Amino acid sequence: MLENITAAKLKNMTLKELIALCEEAREVITSTVLKNGGHLSSNLGTVELTVALHYVFDFPEDKLVFDVGHQCYTHKLLTGRYKNFCTLRQKGGVSGFPKREESPYDCYDTGHAGTSVSAALGIAKARDIKGEDFNVIAVIGDGSFNNGLIYEAFNSLRLLNSKILLILNDNGMSIAPTVGSMHEYLEILSEDMAHKSKVERHGKIFERFGFGYDGVYDGNDLETLIGKLTEVKARLKTESVILHILTKKGKGYTFCEEDPEATHGISNGGAPAEREEYSDVLGKTLVRLAEKNKKIVAVTAAMTSSLGLSEFFEKYPERSVDVGICEEHATILCASMATEGLKPYYAVYSTFLQRSFDEILIDICGQNLPVTLCVDRAGISGADGETHQGVFDLSFLSLIPKLTVAVPKDLTEFEKMIEFSADFDAPLAIRYPRDGKRAFGKCEKIVAGKWETLERGDGKYAVLACGERALTQAYMGVNELRRAGINVTLINARFVKPLDTETLDSLEEEYVLTVEDNVLIGGFGSLIAAYMGGNRKIIKNFAYPDEFIPQGGVAELMKERGVSAEQIVNYIKDNENR
Amino acid sequence: MLENITAAKLKNMTLKELIALCEEAREVITSTVLKNGGHLSSNLGTVELTVALHYVFDFPEDKLVFDVGHQCYTHKLLTGRYKNFCTLRQKGGVSGFPKREESPYDCYDTGHAGTSVSAALGIAKARDIKGEDFNVIAVIGDGSFNNGLIYEAFNSLRLLNSKILLILNDNGMSIAPTVGSMHEYLEILSEDMAHKSKVERHGKIFERFGFGYDGVYDGNDLETLIGKLTEVKARLKTESVILHILTKKGKGYTFCEEDPEATHGISNGGAPAEREEYSDVLGKTLVRLAEKNKKIVAVTAAMTSSLGLSEFFEKYPERSVDVGICEEHATILCASMATEGLKPYYAVYSTFLQRSFDEILIDICGQNLPVTLCVDRAGISGADGETHQGVFDLSFLSLIPKLTVAVPKDLTEFEKMIEFSADFDAPLAIRYPRDGKRAFGKCEKIVAGKWETLERGDGKYAVLACGERALTQAYMGVNELRRAGINVTLINARFVKPLDTETLDSLEEEYVLTVEDNVLIGGFGSLIAAYMGGNRKIIKNFAYPDEFIPQGGVAELMKERGVSAEQIVNYIKDNENR
Repeated sequence: MLENITAAKLKNMTLKELIALCEEAREVITSTVLKNGGHLSSNLGTVELTVALHYVFDFPEDKLVFDVGHQCYTHKLLTGRYKNFCTLRQKGGVSGFPKREESPYDCYDTGHAGTSVSAALGIAKARDIKGEDFNVIAVIGDGSFNNGLIYEAFNSLRLLNSKILLILNDNGMSIAPTVGSMHEYLEILSEDMAHKSKVERHGKIFERFGFGYDGVYDGNDLETLIGKLTEVKARLKTESVILHILTKKGKGYTFCEEDPEATHGISNGGAPAEREEYSDVLGKTLVRLAEKNKKIVAVTAAMTSSLGLSEFFEKYPERSVDVGICEEHATILCASMATEGLKPYYAVYSTFLQRSFDEILIDICGQNLPVTLCVDRAGISGADGETHQGVFDLSFLSLIPKLTVAVPKDLTEFEKMIEFSADFDAPLAIRYPRDGKRAFGKCEKIVAGKWETLERGDGKYAVLACGERALTQAYMGVNELRRAGINVTLINARFVKPLDTETLDSLEEEYVLTVEDNVLIGGFGSLIAAYMGGNRKIIKNFAYPDEFIPQGGVAELMKERGVSAEQIVNYIKDNENR
Repeated sequence: MLENITAAKLKNMTLKELIALCEEAREVITSTVLKNGGHLSSNLGTVELTVALHYVFDFPEDKLVFDVGHQCYTHKLLTGRYKNFCTLRQKGGVSGFPKREESPYDCYDTGHAGTSVSAALGIAKARDIKGEDFNVIAVIGDGSFNNGLIYEAFNSLRLLNSKILLILNDNGMSIAPTVGSMHEYLEILSEDMAHKSKVERHGKIFERFGFGYDGVYDGNDLETLIGKLTEVKARLKTESVILHILTKKGKGYTFCEEDPEATHGISNGGAPAEREEYSDVLGKTLVRLAEKNKKIVAVTAAMTSSLGLSEFFEKYPERSVDVGICEEHATILCASMATEGLKPYYAVYSTFLQRSFDEILIDICGQNLPVTLCVDRAGISGADGETHQGVFDLSFLSLIPKLTVAVPKDLTEFEKMIEFSADFDAPLAIRYPRDGKRAFGKCEKIVAGKWETLERGDGKYAVLACGERALTQAYMGVNELRRAGINVTLINARFVKPLDTETLDSLEEEYVLTVEDNVLIGGFGSLIAAYMGGNRKIIKNFAYPDEFIPQGGVAELMKERGVSAEQIVNYIKDNENR
């Protein structure tokens, strides 16, 4: 039925047909995600909700905003993207997140947590300013509901005086189980629903902010959902409403229902990856160091497991903090714990570290505190696309005074950097991609701001590369050039900040090439160019251009954007032949 | 009494003496602020609270965190900084904000809103991890209480299970009157207090998050405060408490009590400034454009008046939004309103724009939406010091794809840029300092990414400068050089992004000098250096080094950091004489 579904057809279906449609959607999602990777359990939990929303509301006239977007697959299947759904998360294919460019049914792009209520309010406010008449609905999970943006949006609901429907999809999970007092409060509300009692009384917090409150105990029951949404739709003329629905993450797929954390995000290929991950090295090394060093604490924002910190959290619960999806709060906790002499490690994906920019600058670095930022999934992240690329961190971190920025060339060096960090008494960021190898045999002692020379050339070309991916390309390029009789100096720029000015000043090479897994603007290459501006050397940067990078394979995306061994080789060979 | 005050002396004073101490503090604060500038009304409102805290608690063993820090003057007077208080906000003098480097009594540096609860929790958590025993107190105003960080901290209170005292200093004001539902809720609580009733019942929201609640109706009554703080101190052994106290902003100084918004921040010299401000031009121009263009909306985060938007808000209330101190929410509101075809202007101080880094990147630029960021107080901001310098924006904005970054050379050009922005269908940031002139007669038509050549030289030196302050220095330098017979090309780099590559490519000069009111790393000079890396020109950047810039006079701080006409002249003369 999905193949030719339209809004009109869907609205004319019987309940039985709609339930069959849900099952079909569930099957398509499961088989596609197992093949292409993607977000499985969160999407399976919201199939009925999405079908009910499309049955009751009129999209795209009405507007539907998905928080983060991990629940938008059914919506995509219902809005003309069934045929291309097999391209989910592939290069040029259907995005795993809402994209305005992809469909008029996607009214607001998301990817980071907590933005949906603000976005829905802005759309509703614009509607009211323009004197138009449509409904605005935001769907948010209970994980995102921890984010401070929610409070800011709630606080301005009455002020803006624009009506929205907020659907709180409560499955008790972020990626990890949801934590915090708001979650506990939602559990009380859920219990009330279970006993069909007191929902009115306990809705009070939301009412304080101007929302009406209602709930659906079985948020995977299509008939109830349709009934309740129809009821609530009528209320939207006069008030904003929170509809709190309880869903089962991974619904309908036993493996997911039993382990929703492991099946939140599935990698391309289905089975768990066999490659070694930087996060594993982080976890193991911190566990080892924390045994002796009682000052070490680990902080995460709802991603303990994927950051490699499960063992640490089990072994040292009193020194472990997961605050839920509250990146800014997590950052300040680290800063303030450091003022009391502790040694906090804040592990986070590069893309989500963006949320803490001000707190890294003011709270950590402004006070010169020894917090270590463990910046995971740095560089191109692949299938999640534009909103999840970690290609800006070298730029936004390097501009912050007092911060040392380290980029390990492989897993061995990463381990040594973590050991180094334990005695480093100042702000430090270590950035690394997901997968790694113990690729380079050599690893000199880590000294802040000191690079490592891997190859000495003939004095004409020097290649400075930072991080495993960039250095691997540089290394392959240098080897190929050697075979062609061109001997190039290769330097592991393991610290992007401070620069190793001693090494830089001693470079005799006329051509200095930089390679990085980051955008050019403000990144490693720009730092080198600015430092070298006073001499007459030729600087050539291999870094990403000024654009948002779409989904695709890492190697392919890197090469397309000019960061590959081949392009390094070609530049030097062309220069030689000129 | 203040001159030789110590903790021991204070604790032995009678109530009458303590009240006299408060009056003395009030006088010192008032006379110093009228002379040096600073935050007057917020500090006058919390004199009694601070004295009571020092009477009841034992600092620095107990820890006191001030949110933002606009209320720390009395604390400074009581903790050994009376004698130097006459240097408040002056170069090398006492800071207007808490500074760990200044005193062991300042346990956490603040400056941006909403960080205090997280910081207090982190300090308390560290205390518990270390097995120590002291009290941690945060003092927060009701304005900061709107910020999303508060919710994130509240949400993790039970999770962290560390006890703190949170004093909510409620005077009904941020800088402007506080807005939003939390404020309305606080008003209900205040009314209850007035009638000495139902405080218990209405404390419910805070109790949900694990706080006990109590209130003091007259938060300027020293005796009551001491009694209540003593009571609450005993409770901290077993629970965290919010103490909600009602104070009068500007207490004891009639001018302030009557107009706390105008007296929140006082400029050096006391009387309102006569110089023209960029914010005035923003306000007038937007009011004019919005008359015809009904799509224009203005958004601020609790700073309507100081951003020049009062008239706009009065004239077009339906197109005006002040969301309180919620910078991230404000940014997303702009993005989402733009998805519906509106033309939002988000006006904000450069330093507070840092909070929205992720939302500018993902929500505005990721969706390529025509939001205009009006970035006020950019560059060195002067007496507020490290936490308020606007010297990073060119760097953190330039690295964001799709964003155009404009820097007007004077008020006339700023006005034309605002006019230009109204028809510009993409993300745009315009950054400018507080004070300006109509300094340069010439102003060519504004075209995105096109610079303006002000002087043509002899072909050896080109100076590229962006923004009024930098260009003024460059202009003076170029004039002086001309008098010395050296004719230098001078270019107004009115767009830092995109760069005017046509002009850059056509430069015949061997020496390219850049001048900016921003840090070097990632800023205008770095963009030029990276662009020019492939040729053999000499690039010389005049920009701020990699450090936090302390308080002081703007011109003096600029010159100390190498951005002045004199240094430009010296560089070129030295080069000529080499």
